[in-house]
Amino acid sequence: MSLPVITIGRSFGSGGRIIGEKVATLLNIPFYDKQLVQITAEKSGFHEAVVEQMQKKKPTSLLYTLSGTGMEFPLQDQVYFAQSAVICELADKGPCVIVGRCADSVLENYARIMKVFIYAPLEQRIQRAEKEYHVDTRDFKDYVKKTDKKRKGYYDYFTHRVWGKKENYHLCLDSSIGLDLAADLIARAAREFPQG
Amino acid sequence: MSLPVITIGRSFGSGGRIIGEKVATLLNIPFYDKQLVQITAEKSGFHEAVVEQMQKKKPTSLLYTLSGTGMEFPLQDQVYFAQSAVICELADKGPCVIVGRCADSVLENYARIMKVFIYAPLEQRIQRAEKEYHVDTRDFKDYVKKTDKKRKGYYDYFTHRVWGKKENYHLCLDSSIGLDLAADLIARAAREFPQG
Repeated sequence: MSLPVITIGRSFGSGGRIIGEKVATLLNIPFYDKQLVQITAEKSGFHEAVVEQMQKKKPTSLLYTLSGTGMEFPLQDQVYFAQSAVICELADKGPCVIVGRCADSVLENYARIMKVFIYAPLEQRIQRAEKEYHVDTRDFKDYVKKTDKKRKGYYDYFTHRVWGKKENYHLCLDSSIGLDLAADLIARAAREFPQG
Repeated sequence: MSLPVITIGRSFGSGGRIIGEKVATLLNIPFYDKQLVQITAEKSGFHEAVVEQMQKKKPTSLLYTLSGTGMEFPLQDQVYFAQSAVICELADKGPCVIVGRCADSVLENYARIMKVFIYAPLEQRIQRAEKEYHVDTRDFKDYVKKTDKKRKGYYDYFTHRVWGKKENYHLCLDSSIGLDLAADLIARAAREFPQG
């Protein structure tokens, strides 16, 4: 059976990126996370820092107000469109794992897409954030919550869906069952995923 | 590794019961769904029909008003408590699969419990309901939605949680990936479930 493209949404600190890497290794297919920033920058002409920054902002209607003549999309939208085009190109090439970037929505009309969401109890996410992210903060609880809020804002704005709503995904996993077990279940689901 | 007790919540028509049976067969452990009604009736002295009926009603505060002296719990609560005691007894005996009955909440302090929720797109659930449930209705869409609403009302009332909220479960699956695949993933997760 041919493998699907696997998109992984994740709450901050849930280990979704690590799980995605493990899945890609298990299935021997490409993994895209930060590389998407680089490819989007190359293809669009936007600086990498701009592409990255635009994904971390919660969109606001103010951006529209400030976008000048009204004939041009706000920068954040332009970056989103450029990145979405890159995601489609990568999916066209064959099975891969894409973390974040609203890829589940961008690829929603693809026949072979398996959509996954990873979450975990807040306490565990705070611990992982403290351990793995070198962030200048003393209040990691607040940082985790605010990052989730930004992700939700970004996702909901661009997809017109609700971030993390289970009905939008084929498989939702609490990573506290173990990152290896989570990756194993996703890889197994991908291998047996019904032909579209 | 010892298997956990597996609880399966499910939206109506998602095939959660069938998946639960398959999981129990794969793992060679007992499966409890309707049998719980019978056991609860035997142990509590309530008639089976009463036990069954009380689970299908959405609780209302009116029941409290009508419960007489105020010294006695409403019938629905009494049945819930009796059934919860049965669920705990069954879980004490060893690994098993329990469908519905707020078992995830009843057993929340058990170290070895794996909580699963099964859902599916509304259209598929309507189709399954039409095919498998011999119900006297011509509007299956309405029937599916109303049954979900009753389940949510019952669950939220007795557990003080939100029915189907993914964060309450270890694993949430869209059964449109296939009932056999869903059962296989749950069984695999159970076999590797971390020791509590």
